[in-house]
Amino acid sequence: MSAEFALDPRLAGDSVPVIELPLCSVRLMDDARFAWLLLVPRRASTSEIHELDGIERERLWREIGLAGEALRAVAPCDKLNLGALGNIVRQLHVHVVARREGDAAWPGPVWGSGVAEPYAVQARERLVTALHDRLAAAAD
Amino acid sequence: MSAEFALDPRLAGDSVPVIELPLCSVRLMDDARFAWLLLVPRRASTSEIHELDGIERERLWREIGLAGEALRAVAPCDKLNLGALGNIVRQLHVHVVARREGDAAWPGPVWGSGVAEPYAVQARERLVTALHDRLAAAAD
Repeated sequence: MSAEFALDPRLAGDSVPVIELPLCSVRLMDDARFAWLLLVPRRASTSEIHELDGIERERLWREIGLAGEALRAVAPCDKLNLGALGNIVRQLHVHVVARREGDAAWPGPVWGSGVAEPYAVQARERLVTALHDRLAAAAD
Repeated sequence: MSAEFALDPRLAGDSVPVIELPLCSVRLMDDARFAWLLLVPRRASTSEIHELDGIERERLWREIGLAGEALRAVAPCDKLNLGALGNIVRQLHVHVVARREGDAAWPGPVWGSGVAEPYAVQARERLVTALHDRLAAAAD
């Protein structure tokens, strides 16, 4: 890659950092309606999963799995939702969302559903710390 | 698995068969608004990706990649969308969708967006054949 990776400003503005895994920056969406992680591979000029090389793709699937495990461990969850859309922000990013029956978008998708409700700062920090500790313990 | 796999009736009703890959039944959603494949691992009583074993998960990622390649080869596409939701139909299934700028749900997600517009039968058969042939050639 010639260009250097820089996190898309919209993704940066919507979320807060949790941990750097070997491939992805993991971030928590600042939306208290859903426990919602964003995984952003630190690869410049990449918008589709198939643009990653084979090793990076394997790494992405591994980190998606870790994100789902961490969410299930720290947040109530009836169903995990996984999504890679990128219709608005083209920088490759993957959503892993802990859904609860009856949550603000249930049973529809979280994307494009209503308006984010930012966390209270202390609640957000507690959740970020819990997710960070889980991911740090599980990551290889 | 003790129970035998049977395709969920709602998934069956919304889509038509394209090909059987080693893990997944690949089906085309009968919605002419989007070139949209559904991958359903033939595993009974499974609703989350992490419930698959490691080999099956690798296989699922591989088949998702093949589905994306086939869609890009036969359908106009500005962005691939990948989703595993399952909030309504719990049987594990993965969506791979070829999105075009300005399509019926753009830039929002296809899930829960408007009402499906069934294909004309001949157009659907042409698309199914093209997708089948691509997937048959690529599958290992």
